[in-house]
Parts: sequence; structure tokens; C-alpha cells
Amino acid sequence: MSETTTLTTTALHERVEAIFRKGGLNVVQAGALARVIVAGERDACKSHGIYRIEGALRTVKAGKVKPDAIPEIIAQEASAIVKVNAGGGFANPAFELGLPVLAERARTQGIAALAINDCTHFSALWPEAEALTGEGLAGLVMCPSYATVAPTGGNKPLLGTNPFAFGWPRAGRPPYVFDFATSVAARGEIELHRRAGKALPDGWAIDAKGNPTTDPEAALAGAMLPFGGHKGSAIGTMIELLAGIMIGDLTSPEVLDYLGTTTLAPFHGELIIAFSPEAFAAGRPGDPFARAEMLFEAIVGQGARLPSQRRFAARAKSEAEGITLTAAEVEQLDRLLTLGLDAVA
Amino acid sequence: MSETTTLTTTALHERVEAIFRKGGLNVVQAGALARVIVAGERDACKSHGIYRIEGALRTVKAGKVKPDAIPEIIAQEASAIVKVNAGGGFANPAFELGLPVLAERARTQGIAALAINDCTHFSALWPEAEALTGEGLAGLVMCPSYATVAPTGGNKPLLGTNPFAFGWPRAGRPPYVFDFATSVAARGEIELHRRAGKALPDGWAIDAKGNPTTDPEAALAGAMLPFGGHKGSAIGTMIELLAGIMIGDLTSPEVLDYLGTTTLAPFHGELIIAFSPEAFAAGRPGDPFARAEMLFEAIVGQGARLPSQRRFAARAKSEAEGITLTAAEVEQLDRLLTLGLDAVA
Repeated sequence: MSETTTLTTTALHERVEAIFRKGGLNVVQAGALARVIVAGERDACKSHGIYRIEGALRTVKAGKVKPDAIPEIIAQEASAIVKVNAGGGFANPAFELGLPVLAERARTQGIAALAINDCTHFSALWPEAEALTGEGLAGLVMCPSYATVAPTGGNKPLLGTNPFAFGWPRAGRPPYVFDFATSVAARGEIELHRRAGKALPDGWAIDAKGNPTTDPEAALAGAMLPFGGHKGSAIGTMIELLAGIMIGDLTSPEVLDYLGTTTLAPFHGELIIAFSPEAFAAGRPGDPFARAEMLFEAIVGQGARLPSQRRFAARAKSEAEGITLTAAEVEQLDRLLTLGLDAVA
Repeated sequence: MSETTTLTTTALHERVEAIFRKGGLNVVQAGALARVIVAGERDACKSHGIYRIEGALRTVKAGKVKPDAIPEIIAQEASAIVKVNAGGGFANPAFELGLPVLAERARTQGIAALAINDCTHFSALWPEAEALTGEGLAGLVMCPSYATVAPTGGNKPLLGTNPFAFGWPRAGRPPYVFDFATSVAARGEIELHRRAGKALPDGWAIDAKGNPTTDPEAALAGAMLPFGGHKGSAIGTMIELLAGIMIGDLTSPEVLDYLGTTTLAPFHGELIIAFSPEAFAAGRPGDPFARAEMLFEAIVGQGARLPSQRRFAARAKSEAEGITLTAAEVEQLDRLLTLGLDAVA
């Protein structure tokens, strides 16, 4: 067994933030990025953990994200829309800036939306959904991505893997949170099958001619398919409309045109909708939070899982015992810290 | 070929409204119900057309909906939530009452929600989604139903078939609208397979022991499955939380407890979220409506269909040529008009 290193989340945060500072990011960008990356690593979401540092730095090096951006908030009185312009930086500090204003609007007006524009996005959406629940709010989060998914009945990439996330607060325990791609599989999973020389399951993808394929190479040259057939295709399209077009930001095909590659973090917007369960339930019988617990108990009681259960279990373990990295991972972090942008292609 | 009768939509509306008046509904309830039922028949959605009249009347006869309810609106200043209490009547007149206030709030505040409480619901959700687009707004509509769907990984009915609908306005042509159940199939489709003695496709249902089944009888005694596996299950759960619990109304298991049957129209609430694309896009490059047309063209251009295309084609035909009913259908309408509630069990 190879050597491993165990770090507290705080120690890992410091290391990741230092890497981003070395890579030229200002404190606002570096801090927010380190927070979501450490959260991913802590929750054993390896695909959104320290693995993502390099992609973020590559995007900086390619000049496709502003490492020194300061997000700016635009919140008009009497509007339930809060807008944050990320200024060409990453989405994460823009969300952190907008969250308290969004939460205040949602509390006073019952429902409110945060539109983040001109941002580079590379993280999962569950950190946003969870942050809303931390304010006692329920929330929906969505954004486009690159055009890699064909609409059902079509034969060419057009939609993104467009993630859709939701959160509901639970007192004294982790929130109810889901966050999934509206494609059958993530693009990374197809890549993993390719590297392993394994055939894809049926229904994941089509080839460049639009025919079903289980060959990962043909799938990468063709298109992925939406989850749930025409229903998932419709949800993916809705996300292009609401979280791309409606907020005046790029759609998934426009993102791909702009970047010319799927190897950099995508540049687009993000839409967050926050609900105050207290405001909605006011004057109605029953406490919404207590009633939600009955629903969750009924789900778990019949042997089904709540989404994110595995992630929260990993989090509890990381918080108690620290985060364990392999020798190769530690070496890579050291390399990034020493070389900064010179460490990435 | 048997005799048919062709009616204008206006003539059919008058006939359906008269049936509901004969059945004891007041003008507010009868008019709104006739509008959605004629819209279903006009669009060749037979499952939501005149076929639904009997179920609505059965629900009246069973005392599970108030035929003389007058919905009441509660809209606080400075709130983005509009609430309509349907007063134990049908959802449709409550929606008609709330729509203009919802639209005004969405225009001024950018996003707004309409919560309908204490209503009986028996129609599709696309009429609501379309009505929002008629106001130049985009919108999301959802509601619970009866507990007939098992969460993924579970083995007992808990969630409803919880429909999820969305609309986006298009100038000079029918809107982009989808409306689907979050179960793989509608309960009615399983019933149709049972009557035809046909096996169900794989993946639609489980039996009372939680095992996969293709036997319609076993499926009706067991549970339906969500569309798209755990993702559809998560969306169905979200709908219970937002459009049941959050708005202080019944969840799908509570609806079934209350009614004790799935043969009457369900009593619960409904949540409608309206977005002003103009408010969201303000200050950003590009016209959101023109950009959406480019997305729709790209979808259609690769041979995929937009949702509701078939419905809009049927509508154009009905509006040009009238609605054609079979002799049996006309006879049934005559019978309902003569006998009122005595015509139903």
C-alpha cells in the first residue's frame, strides 16, 4: 500500500488557496474556488475535488477566465431579481457575493432569483443548493454547459449536460439535495470507458451519423443522449432557455463556439431560484419543515435512499478523521504550488 | 363508418358548460372547466378532453369538490407570492383569477409565484403554461397527485405521477410548451394495457412485493416507477416538497388518504412560477425571444420535434374545420346534459 497523507479540511483549503494565488488568482477568486474544491474532496466527490484545480488553471492560462475579477452586484429595489456580474471571473465568488442579498429578497418577497452573468463555471451545483438551505430556503439551481448532447430525435450535439440541482433545508441534519446532469451520463464517464476500453451501456450515446452506439470513441465523436428520453431533453432545453437565453448569457452551443474545446471550464451564466417555505406556508396548516421530514422518513422507510446520502456520510468521516490524499495527489499539489501556471499545458 | 358530428369550439364549449351547470356547478366553476376540457378536445388530447367530464361530475357527486366555490385571492403588497384559495372548488377558476395578478407581479418584480390551495385538480398543466406565455412570460407549473409511484430503490407507492410543465412565449406562433408526468407512464396507460390484455413494457412498474413486473394487474396492485430512474424520482420528490408541503397543501400520500380512491379527481394545491424574460435579460446583449427562436430552429433543423407540436397541429385543424365527435360521444354528452349528476355513479 502506498503512502497517504491525511489533512484537515482547513489545511487542505490553505494549500488549495495558495495554489490558486500562485496561479495568479486574486483573493476573492482563490478563496471561493478553494472552498468548492475542498468541499468536493471532503465529500468524496473526486470528480469535483482537487482533480479540478488543473482545469481551472488551464482555463486561466488560456486567457478564458479573468483571474483578478471582482464580481459586482446589481440589485434594484422592489425587484425579486438579483444580478451579479462575475466580470469574467469564476462563478463561485459571484455566488458568494449574491447569496446574502438573494436570501434577504427571498425572505421578504417569498421567491427571488439570482442571475450570475459572464462567469466561468467548473464546479458542481450542490454547493449552491446547500448554501441556500443554510439560509433556511429551498432552491433550484441550473446552468448550461457545452453542446455535447443531442435533443431526443435529433442526431447532433446541441444541448449541454445542463445540471439541475435542488435543495430543501432540514434542521439539525444535512439538507435534502440533489444535483444531476440532464444527460444520461456525464461526459467524464464516457471518457473513463474509453480509457478502460469498455463498451458503453445502451442508450448513452449516438455516433456522428446519429445511430445508437456503445463505442466510447464513436460516442465522443457523436453526441450524448438526454436522461429519460424526451422528458430529459425537454428539461435540458428549458435550462438553455432559462439559465442561458433568459438571463442574457451564452447557450451551450455558443459556449462551445466561444471556447472551441471542451477541455477548458465553460463560460456562461447560472440561474438560482430561492423559495422561502415560511412565506409560502404562512397562514396554511402544518409546519412545512416538519411535514417534509415525514416525507423523507417515508422514502427511507421503504428502503430508498435520499440523494446525497453517500456524500454526507463521506463528509462526516472527513470532518472527524480528515481528508486522506495519495502520495501522487500530494506530489501533484506540491508541483502546482511550486510551478503555478507553468505546471499546466 | 359511424356517424360523426362536427362542432365549432364555441359550440362545444356551450354544450360542456351547460352540462356542468346542470351538474350543479356555478358559472365560475363551469366556465373554467369547460375551457380546459374543450382545449383538450380541440388539441386532440382525448385523455384530457370531454372524457374528463364524468370524472369531474363524479367528484362533485361524491362531495369531494365544492361545485359552488368562489376562489379568493390573497396578494400582499411587496410580495412576489400571489395566493389563491380555491375554496374547495376546482383549480381552473382559481388559476384564471390569479393569472393577471401573477403576471403583473412577474413583470414588475421579474419573478413571481402563484400558489393555489384547497383545489380539486383534474386537468393537464399545459393550459396554465400556455396562459403564462400568452402574457409574454415563461413559466413552470407543478402539482402532486395520488401516491401511485414508488421512489427509485423503494417498493411502495408514495409519490404521485406529479406533472411538470414549462412554457416559453413565441411571437406569432404557438409557444414552446412541455407537460409530462414524472412517472414513466401515466396510470391511464397501464389501465389501457390491462383492458387490452397486453403486457407492459419493461421498467414501468413493480408488483406489490417490489419486484419488476410487466403484468398490468400486478402493476396496479404495486407501484409505478419514476421516469429516468433516480433523477425522475428526485424531481417527483421536489414537486411533493414545493407544490405540496411548501404551499401548505396535501402531498400525494395525503391526497390518497383523504379520498380513499384514485377514481375521483385529486384534492391538493398547485404551484406556478412566472418569469419575465424581459426583466431578466435587461441590460444584457441580445433579445431573448429572438435567441430562443435560434435554439428552436436548431432543434427542429436536426430532425427532432418540439414538445406539443402534434397538439398545436391538431388545434389548427380544429380551429379551421371544427371538432369532430363520434355518435357515441355526442350521445354521452346528451345524456350528461339531460341527467346531470344522475348520469354518473
